[in-house]
Amino acid sequence: MSVPDAPVTGAHPRPSGPADGGPARPSRLDPAIAARLRRTPDGLVTAVVRAHDTGEVLMVAWMDDEALHRTLTTGRATYWSRSRREYWVKGATSGHHQYVRSVALDCDGDALLVSVEQVGAACHTGHRSCFFTELPVDAAGDRS
Amino acid sequence: MSVPDAPVTGAHPRPSGPADGGPARPSRLDPAIAARLRRTPDGLVTAVVRAHDTGEVLMVAWMDDEALHRTLTTGRATYWSRSRREYWVKGATSGHHQYVRSVALDCDGDALLVSVEQVGAACHTGHRSCFFTELPVDAAGDRS
Repeated sequence: MSVPDAPVTGAHPRPSGPADGGPARPSRLDPAIAARLRRTPDGLVTAVVRAHDTGEVLMVAWMDDEALHRTLTTGRATYWSRSRREYWVKGATSGHHQYVRSVALDCDGDALLVSVEQVGAACHTGHRSCFFTELPVDAAGDRS
Repeated sequence: MSVPDAPVTGAHPRPSGPADGGPARPSRLDPAIAARLRRTPDGLVTAVVRAHDTGEVLMVAWMDDEALHRTLTTGRATYWSRSRREYWVKGATSGHHQYVRSVALDCDGDALLVSVEQVGAACHTGHRSCFFTELPVDAAGDRS
């Protein structure tokens, strides 16, 4: 059993990379998948969300092991809110659901690419995508 | 001047959101842009990189203020390596350059979408994209 006051961690084996604090909360995630994750010190991986049909990048959020488990097994994109410290199912309050079509893990296990059928706007501002603010690139495409 | 042994921070104003540790290193980034960033406690924002032509998501990396400044002003994608704690210009050693076509900031200032002309493979494994490992979705597209 875990020591009182120690961080709660999952029971399954996991890599112990320098940036991996391990699962921060109990999770039902397949241990074979959990073993491939490299998490931030607070137990998270980055989730990049794109529209499955157009490929448009819609938003970036965070998942812990359990959020990934719920995403994979319910087909509804589920994230971990760092500010509220709770799980949130996209669309639960807004109606802007994300039906998950596929999920891919990146080469070093710290980012996920979630392809979804997006209902309505992905961004809480009402924009289709959260990435609506262009920054000035002074040397765009300069190959010199 | 900064106090010896204190973290080095930029001089420009910045939001003081709960997750924002401020610039972790000195930076020449336009203060108007820096003021919009919401950084991790170690001064970073997520950079999602996609191919400008196909929209394919290639990789995820990290930028601090100075990496973003260099990316915007040189047109070469430049990141902060958390493990090596140094800047790296994509392609500097591999030849797999990323020529930056556009950069967008997301609605809450903690993620960037970098559209690039990717030379060769974006992934260090030799894959075009880092997201080549599909995870099983048990309920894909289930709207029930």
